[in-house]
Amino acid sequence: MLPRLRTLSGRNKEKRLMDMIDGVKIIPLKQIVDNRGAVYHAFRNENHDVNVEEVYISRVNAGVTKGWKQHLQTWQRFVVPYGTMEIVLHDEREDSPTKGAFQKIVLGPEDNYVRLELPPKIWYAFKSLSDDYALMINISEMIHVDGESNNIPLENDLFHYDWK
Amino acid sequence: MLPRLRTLSGRNKEKRLMDMIDGVKIIPLKQIVDNRGAVYHAFRNENHDVNVEEVYISRVNAGVTKGWKQHLQTWQRFVVPYGTMEIVLHDEREDSPTKGAFQKIVLGPEDNYVRLELPPKIWYAFKSLSDDYALMINISEMIHVDGESNNIPLENDLFHYDWK
Repeated sequence: MLPRLRTLSGRNKEKRLMDMIDGVKIIPLKQIVDNRGAVYHAFRNENHDVNVEEVYISRVNAGVTKGWKQHLQTWQRFVVPYGTMEIVLHDEREDSPTKGAFQKIVLGPEDNYVRLELPPKIWYAFKSLSDDYALMINISEMIHVDGESNNIPLENDLFHYDWK
Repeated sequence: MLPRLRTLSGRNKEKRLMDMIDGVKIIPLKQIVDNRGAVYHAFRNENHDVNVEEVYISRVNAGVTKGWKQHLQTWQRFVVPYGTMEIVLHDEREDSPTKGAFQKIVLGPEDNYVRLELPPKIWYAFKSLSDDYALMINISEMIHVDGESNNIPLENDLFHYDWK
């Protein structure tokens, strides 16, 4: 499933139709399934150019939306191995050709099994669409340090997204 | 929960009581829980001495046991973020002080949230104790290549483990 075009409304000054924020990568991943279970690929450092420093998992309970969050230095690499997660991205980078754009993508092992990679400074929020919860693995090039990321409320003065 | 002492029976010539195979590491991991969900720690490269080359996930359906498997060069780092997985290890390394030993550990986000790290050449098998399935993340220093690992059936001529 490709990310959908999305019209913006409300407080946004720049109304943009955009299906891909500049620099964001969506990498299809394999699932090798048999009657005993499966192997889900998540990350391969094929070019040996990524220094993985931290791996952690976000569990998001049914109906909960976490965000907005922005990392200043590190990329984020998201894989959802359980449940269904809706992720919304927003670009406020001054020098970006897609400044002002929003992008929505739904990730999960059944719906759309891909790795979503975000460059630094992309704002993101994520919502569990599961009845119980969803799990999202993050593969990061930095160990968490205070001050490397920003958090703002879902409703904020910087930008507005209509969650519906 | 610590791995249990286990008596061996059947075809094993060396009957050993052992609660820890030499070189195996069990690292407690934090879960930071709130009413919206949780953050589960999985891996931090604190000493910058691990080159993570591949991350993948094994899904094991209810009641299924996968194994035995042995990697020849790379460590394995297992984290179970969903379900309950019983993992049995066996040491056949000629030069090991625990040669002949078996070790059992149960991993899961609710029961025993730890990272299990296995040196090369440890045999391992894993069984889902969940009603649906269990997921196990493996954080590896090598991208999968044929010939780097060995697989033998659960019932084999090299060693015997009594699964109950």
